Formats: sequence, structure tokens, C-alpha cells
Amino acid sequence: MNTHTFDTYLLQNRERLLEDYKDFLRQPSVAATGQGITEMAALVARRFATLGADVQIIPTTPDSAPVVWAELGEGDKTLLIYNHYDVQPAEPLELWETPPFEPAVRNGHIYARGASDDKGELVTRIHAVEAWKATQGALPLKIKWLVEGEEEVGSVHLHQWVEQHQGMLKSNGCLWEGGGFDEKGRFELTMGVKGICYVQLRVKAVDHDLHSSRAPLAPDAAWRLVWALNSIKDNQENILIDGYMKYVREPSAAQMEMLQHIPMEEEEIKNKWGIHEFLKGRSGLDALKALYFAPTATVCGLTSGWQGMGTKTVLPAEATAKVDFRLVPDLTPDIVVDLLRKHLDRSGFTDVEIVSYDGYRAEFCDVEAPIVKAAERAAKRIYGQTPVMIPNSPGSGPMWSLSSFIGGVPVVSAGISHSDARVHSPNENIPLQNYYDGMRYIGALIDEFAKS
Amino acid sequence: MNTHTFDTYLLQNRERLLEDYKDFLRQPSVAATGQGITEMAALVARRFATLGADVQIIPTTPDSAPVVWAELGEGDKTLLIYNHYDVQPAEPLELWETPPFEPAVRNGHIYARGASDDKGELVTRIHAVEAWKATQGALPLKIKWLVEGEEEVGSVHLHQWVEQHQGMLKSNGCLWEGGGFDEKGRFELTMGVKGICYVQLRVKAVDHDLHSSRAPLAPDAAWRLVWALNSIKDNQENILIDGYMKYVREPSAAQMEMLQHIPMEEEEIKNKWGIHEFLKGRSGLDALKALYFAPTATVCGLTSGWQGMGTKTVLPAEATAKVDFRLVPDLTPDIVVDLLRKHLDRSGFTDVEIVSYDGYRAEFCDVEAPIVKAAERAAKRIYGQTPVMIPNSPGSGPMWSLSSFIGGVPVVSAGISHSDARVHSPNENIPLQNYYDGMRYIGALIDEFAKS
Repeated sequence: MNTHTFDTYLLQNRERLLEDYKDFLRQPSVAATGQGITEMAALVARRFATLGADVQIIPTTPDSAPVVWAELGEGDKTLLIYNHYDVQPAEPLELWETPPFEPAVRNGHIYARGASDDKGELVTRIHAVEAWKATQGALPLKIKWLVEGEEEVGSVHLHQWVEQHQGMLKSNGCLWEGGGFDEKGRFELTMGVKGICYVQLRVKAVDHDLHSSRAPLAPDAAWRLVWALNSIKDNQENILIDGYMKYVREPSAAQMEMLQHIPMEEEEIKNKWGIHEFLKGRSGLDALKALYFAPTATVCGLTSGWQGMGTKTVLPAEATAKVDFRLVPDLTPDIVVDLLRKHLDRSGFTDVEIVSYDGYRAEFCDVEAPIVKAAERAAKRIYGQTPVMIPNSPGSGPMWSLSSFIGGVPVVSAGISHSDARVHSPNENIPLQNYYDGMRYIGALIDEFAKS
Repeated sequence: MNTHTFDTYLLQNRERLLEDYKDFLRQPSVAATGQGITEMAALVARRFATLGADVQIIPTTPDSAPVVWAELGEGDKTLLIYNHYDVQPAEPLELWETPPFEPAVRNGHIYARGASDDKGELVTRIHAVEAWKATQGALPLKIKWLVEGEEEVGSVHLHQWVEQHQGMLKSNGCLWEGGGFDEKGRFELTMGVKGICYVQLRVKAVDHDLHSSRAPLAPDAAWRLVWALNSIKDNQENILIDGYMKYVREPSAAQMEMLQHIPMEEEEIKNKWGIHEFLKGRSGLDALKALYFAPTATVCGLTSGWQGMGTKTVLPAEATAKVDFRLVPDLTPDIVVDLLRKHLDRSGFTDVEIVSYDGYRAEFCDVEAPIVKAAERAAKRIYGQTPVMIPNSPGSGPMWSLSSFIGGVPVVSAGISHSDARVHSPNENIPLQNYYDGMRYIGALIDEFAKS
């Protein structure tokens, strides 16, 4: 590619493109309430059409946000791009310095709901494609672009949609949403995600709260819950659910190699968290391996009986816990619920009910795939640094729903966010420089992936 | 005693005495707010004076409710009587059919806050003494009467007051407040109480709530609490605190004999609680022995992290539990806190903080003492039935503070309450017949105890 003409185009059209970015931010699109979802899907589709794409707005269910699907270019390689056009609710509104849907530039940052997550990234990619076509001619590869509108409410229909449309999705690599720069300004590339299974455990031991003097005769829901939880993980952090740990595999040599180069500021993190050492004294490679590749079992919340000031001598009838499990591949949310049920029954806790919420499967990607290598080379070209290569994310997302149906397509997240982007919070923002560089990065990525 | 003249006096003065009862109920005396406490103490003292008693209003601390102390009569025996002149708050007021401090008679019941607990019993006893003196002449024994004004807020100064005035309190037996008739109309006598130690356990694991994807590195306060609790009692209901169970003694032969005659409606209770069997399959004597004589450890409440609807993937920084321990003699609240601290430290839970609240010591009484036998004979005389003899209460109260300083004086509770008295609730009431019979019962008790 001719980077000079590409960069010049972006510079010369800066004002107009920024206005386009603002148009995306001005249109509310709150998945949780439905506000502006239809209008936003139409706006995205119109914008894709101006790129010369074949665009479809494809429904998920009659009442849900549709998927915007676009195809552009031709070539030996096909790049699948995933973004979402919905945003988190903007509340609490009083904490915004300027209104969330009136984009404002201050001190070189653009502020609005969605400025980063995920309209900022979507626009960056659209503008890069526009600049490519205006300055380099035809795209050197085929792009398939999936933009969903329910990411902020758990991508509730994505899995089903992808299953129905898997024939369309075939590709050689996928560029995911998210990613950007860490606290020290280091550019990060992330491959894969852990899965998640979120459940509520509920015990109802007696009909109504009793006077605690009845404790020698009546079962205590809180004790039942404590013992059931204790049977799930011991105080040495061993998850005791039979069959759970057999899904854990050692990271590959390439994944381990990446872990060795991840700069983790251990002392800074520990100070921030107010602890003297990480769990089990973990440090260095050991800590990174656990963070990125170990399944977990976390008590996210406990509720039972008297929680006010002072004393109330009550034997609680009911107790609940919220528990999340971060998962490795093949350990699906369904399997976890099944193993957990069997474990509780076998351990004498048939009285402990499991309420399971929607979850995600894990997707650990091939960290040596061409799309990953291309993303890495593009980072060296644009940012002049070797990016931090994160072989897997400790968090979770709907990546598996996309890649699994199309033969485990390798996925990489390469974004424009930064450590103070306030994603999901008031005053969400992106430094304009990240957006400018991001467009050049996408151009380089297209170039590198097409050549690879 | 001449029961005919005694009973005739009560009948002939019924209207006047009932008006006197109502005067007690009209005067608010809410310990929690202080409302009417001073006026109520003065009213009790004036009433004692009309009986010809030596009366003193003795302060506890300058800002707290005083003790009303009265001495009447002479004799070889001294009967100590314990009552309290304070009441629970009347709220929620809208649930009262008639205002809480405007006593009303409906369907043979008298309704007002304190009608049962404890003004009803105090008045019953005062009127019995009046009738005795009016019809039998001098009292056949000495009565020492302690009426405190802080029972409903945990008798916070009683212990100290008794310690300072123990010389005055010497007696041969004590008539406690409370008691009456069970659901089937059986009259009950109760001796002794369990103690109680109430604590909050608190864990702060990290500085602030973290994203749950950090679980491989950051300690989870909720897990720490679960494991700490699990170390306190196992799922077979064994309390594991080192040194705790050594305080447990077998009930005496006389106590066991009493247990064998307690009619426990097991199926009714289980149906009411919605359970198929009591804890550990307990039944019969085994269930009664545990209920009345076993120490306990009860989780009264749990709080941590996300407790709302749906999911929040949070690793909670803090978790707390409220725990009460019902105690046997010599296992004092201070000892429990000390044993618990040592147990937690030894078990690796130095991070679990103990916040301890005021507690009570246990007081298991001599169930064959003359005051108990006298109370039993009086019941047979007035109610024509052998009372249910309950050797100890599964609940807790300030009994130890009174009896311990005066050589373990035996205590018996013999009251006028019933199973629908709504004590501490709106529409507190007493059937007037219970009050009429109660006065005759107190006359018989004085007679029996003096003769014994």
C-alpha cells in the first residue's frame, strides 16, 4: 500500500470524518432500553452502503436488535470483522460533564457514550476502509462485517443468529472489538476469551424465619449455603467439583512464550488492590498463567437473614449466593451446571437449588495464526513498538458463538481504547490521537493480512 | 391462707383493680426512646408505697432508666421478684385496632402495649399482694422487688447495678417475669435460660470490589468468610471451636425427668416450619435435650457483594456474617469471643475480624428448689393441673446478672401470658381471665413458699 496517500487522505478529510464519528455518537442506541436501536442499525447500514458494500439488516427475533451485515471487496483472504452498534445506558446522567449523546471535544479527547465502546472502533474501521478505497483502489481482500446490537445485554441472540447464518461467515481470520493501550501506553493485542457460567445458589430450609433459639431443631439456610459453597472450593483454592478440572489444558508453547513477555506491574497492582501478595503467593509466569488460563469459581454475592445494624437473633429461612465460573474450552456453561448439580447432590446438598443465567463458552485462539501475525506486524509499523501479545483474555465474551460455527476461525482484538476511557461509565472518551492512529493501523492490518 | 376471703376481695374490687391495671398501661414507658420512663418509674414507686412497702428509686447511670426497689413483709423466707416497667416501641401504629397506650377491653381480652410484657404480670403480682394484706393480714414472708426499666433494650445496666447492690438482694428464691400458657392451654413453669454471645464476623480482602476476572490473583472476601464459617461448625452440626464443647454438662436426673414430661407437638411444629424432620433426625427426649441444654452456633445473616437481580461479575472486597451462640453455664460471652479468636487464628483466618455485641450468661437453675416446688403446688391448686415443668429456656435473658451475685438463687418464671399475646407486636393482649386467675395464683404461691 501507499501509506503516504492513505495518511494524506485521512489528514485532508479529518474534519468531515470527525463529524461522521460524531453522527454515530449523536444517535442513542441503548440495548437495555431499546432506545434508538432501529435508527442506529439503519445509520450503520447507510454508512456501509456509502463504502459500496452489500448491506443487509438481518433480524434476530422480531422484537430484538437486528444484525447489520456488510460484505466488501474481493480477494484470496477473507477478514471477518465483529463490532456492535449498541451502547450501555448513560446513567447516572448528572455525572457527565457534557451530555452523553452530544459528542464534545475537550483537551484532545472526544467525549460521548460509545466514543470507545464500540462506536469509536466501528467508525475507525469504516474510515480506514474509506481511505483505502479512495487512495489504494480495490480492497486487497474480502471483508465480511457483522455488527450486532445486543452486545451490552449479553449478545442474547447472537449464538442463534450465527448458527442460522454460518454459511455466510466463512473467513480466514477475525478482527474482534475492544483492545487498545495499557496504563503505560503499550499497545495490546488479545486473542481469545474465557467462558463464563453465572449461577445463583438458593437454599430454603424452613418455611419462615425462626427465633434463633430453635437452632437445635431447625435447619439454618445460611449454614446449608456455607457448607454447600465450601464443598465447591476449598480454602486452598482447589475447585472440588468432580470432572471440572479435567478440562484444563496446559497452554501451548507459543502461548507460554507470549506470557513470558507480558509486562505485569505486580507491585502497582497489589498496592492498588491493598494486598501484600497475590492469591497462593502467585507471581511472574505463574500468576499470568493462572490469570489467563485457569478456570475459576468466584462468590460474587451472599444474602441471608439479618443484614442491618446490631443484632437480630434470627434463624434465616433462606440464603442465596451468586457464583461465577470462568471457563476454559470445552467446559461449557451447560456442562458446569450439570457437574455442579451432580456434585451438590452427591455431597448431600439436594436442597440447594441452582438458577443459571446465560453464559458464554471459552474461545482460546491460535496465537500463531496469520491474522495474529498480521496484527502484530501492523502494530510495529504504526506504533513503532512490539505490541503486548496477550494469548487469552481473563474476561468473557460472545467470541465462541462466532468462531465455533466456522471452524474455529482465529480471532484478535486490536482497538483504540486507553486505560482512562471510562467505558460503561460517565464521561466515556477516546483521545483523538488514538482514533487517528487507529485508522492508519487498520489500513496497515488490511495490507499485512492480505499479503500474508 | 383463707382463699375464700382472698378470692372474694378480688371479685369485689375487680373494677377498681382493672382501672389500676389500665393506669399502668396508659403510661407509655418505651426503653428504646426513653418516652415516659421517668413517669413510669414514679408510678410504680407510688403504687408500691400504697402497699406499705419501703420503696426506693435507685439510679443506674445518670441518663438511664432507674431501678424501682421495694421491700415488704417479714418472715423466715425471702422471695425476690423480678419485673420490668419498660415496654417495646408500639410501632407500626397503623396495625393496632385501638391505640397502644389507650387500654381497651374486647371479647374478654385487654389490649395495650405492655398488657402482657410486663405490666400485666407486674400488676397481677401487686394486686395479689394487696389482696393478701387486706384479707390475710401480714405477709408470711419477706418480699424484695426489683423492677428495672431497660429490659427491652438488653438490661444494659442491670448487671452493674446488681453487682453494686448485691447485699440487698439476698433471698431464698426468685420469681421471674414471663411465662404463662402454651397453645393447648397448659400452664408452664420455666427455670433458667441459655446465655447468648452475638458477634459479627467481617472480612475485608481487597481495597475495593474488583472485576471477577481477577479471581486467579485477588482474594475473595466472600470465600474467606465461607471458609471461616465452615471451620466453626461442620455440616454434621458439630461446633469445632476448640474448648467450646467441654462446657457442656449432662442434664441432672431431675432435669431429665422434667424433659420426659414435656409435651412437644413434634408433627405440628414440623408442619409449621415446613420440614420433614428435626435437625439430625432428633425426636422425643433427644430433641428436648438439645433444645433446652445444647449450646448452638447460628448464622443469623450473610452479606457480601452483588445481591440484586441477575448477574454482576464482581469479586467482593468485603463480606460479613452475623452469628449467635446460645450458651451453657460457665461458657460466658467473653470466653466464646476468646475461643473464637484463637480458633480463627489457628485455622488461618487472622483476616476475619470479630465485632462482639452485648451478651448474656446462661443461668441453669436448681429445678428441685423450694421456690420451684412451691410454684408447682400453687399451679395444681389454682389451675387444677400439673404444670409443664421446663427445666431451662432455649432463649436468653439477664437472669444470671441477678442470681449469680446472690449465690445462685433458684429462679422460676410463672406468668399470665398465652400463645396469642402478641408480645412485642401490635395488639398485645391478655385474656382478663388469665389476669384474674393470675392474682389467685400469686396468692397461692406466697402461701406455698412461706410454708415450705
